Amino acid sequence: MSLRVRPATEADWPAIWPILEAVVRPGEVYAVDPAIGEPEGRAYWFSSGHEVFVAEAGGVIVGSYYMRANQGGGGAHVANCGYMTDPARQRRGVARTMCLHSLDHARARGFRAMQFNIVVSTNTRAVRLWDSLGFAVVGRLPGAFHHPREGYVDALVMFQTL
Amino acid sequence: MSLRVRPATEADWPAIWPILEAVVRPGEVYAVDPAIGEPEGRAYWFSSGHEVFVAEAGGVIVGSYYMRANQGGGGAHVANCGYMTDPARQRRGVARTMCLHSLDHARARGFRAMQFNIVVSTNTRAVRLWDSLGFAVVGRLPGAFHHPREGYVDALVMFQTL
Repeated sequence: MSLRVRPATEADWPAIWPILEAVVRPGEVYAVDPAIGEPEGRAYWFSSGHEVFVAEAGGVIVGSYYMRANQGGGGAHVANCGYMTDPARQRRGVARTMCLHSLDHARARGFRAMQFNIVVSTNTRAVRLWDSLGFAVVGRLPGAFHHPREGYVDALVMFQTL
Repeated sequence: MSLRVRPATEADWPAIWPILEAVVRPGEVYAVDPAIGEPEGRAYWFSSGHEVFVAEAGGVIVGSYYMRANQGGGGAHVANCGYMTDPARQRRGVARTMCLHSLDHARARGFRAMQFNIVVSTNTRAVRLWDSLGFAVVGRLPGAFHHPREGYVDALVMFQTL
């Protein structure tokens, strides 16, 4: 599968929404209301301050990510991203490709680091992927994520200097 | 100085803004644009999802704090607060009183934990205060805050289960 990552516009939203919906509805990996509606989903993904990209395979959108400054003022040099892959296209390098793209883009934008604020510890595939791409666990938040089946599980703060 | 903490309304904004301005302008402790204007300051402090309180001494507002859910979905049981004390009234227990109030209020609201996302490590007075009130350092973000005089300094993630 040849993947291409490009900037998104709101015209891409009809292809992004089913992916976001599929990712958040189970409530297992994303700190977003699993019952989120379409307008709120759009407002969230295309928040002011979010720069949005999509990953395409053969012209079909298979994933999307946003980048933003994680904090304002003295914290504005640290980027934050959220990535979502079509569950039907997982385990094919989509998230890895998007993350590598985001690291390059963050450097080009002048960000000096990237931080993930709430990586669910039971999402071991994601933790391993971010680790393999250079992120270190710099914090562990006890019971900070309420998993629908596992109960209160730890969440990780992951960070890398660019 | 007898302090009273009460819910704020936007009618209190004219008394809160000079405090926010005095706290953020030096750019040393808050991850907010030091050049923030009054309308943006108001939109930030009274963001939807923020519950705002003020601390009064003899009827004069000497501090303010907000409370919000730190994340959505599976992270919504963790509260986050931001506190600001009139610099002319510091070292008189205003921040301590507001934080104790917020811990009680967070419990009453059903939050199960409280997290501070970016405590500037050079702000040793704040770090000591949060420590004395039961917060533990659960993460250290390397160089995540750009201090106007100290350069890139670490920031701390502080957390307590309620």
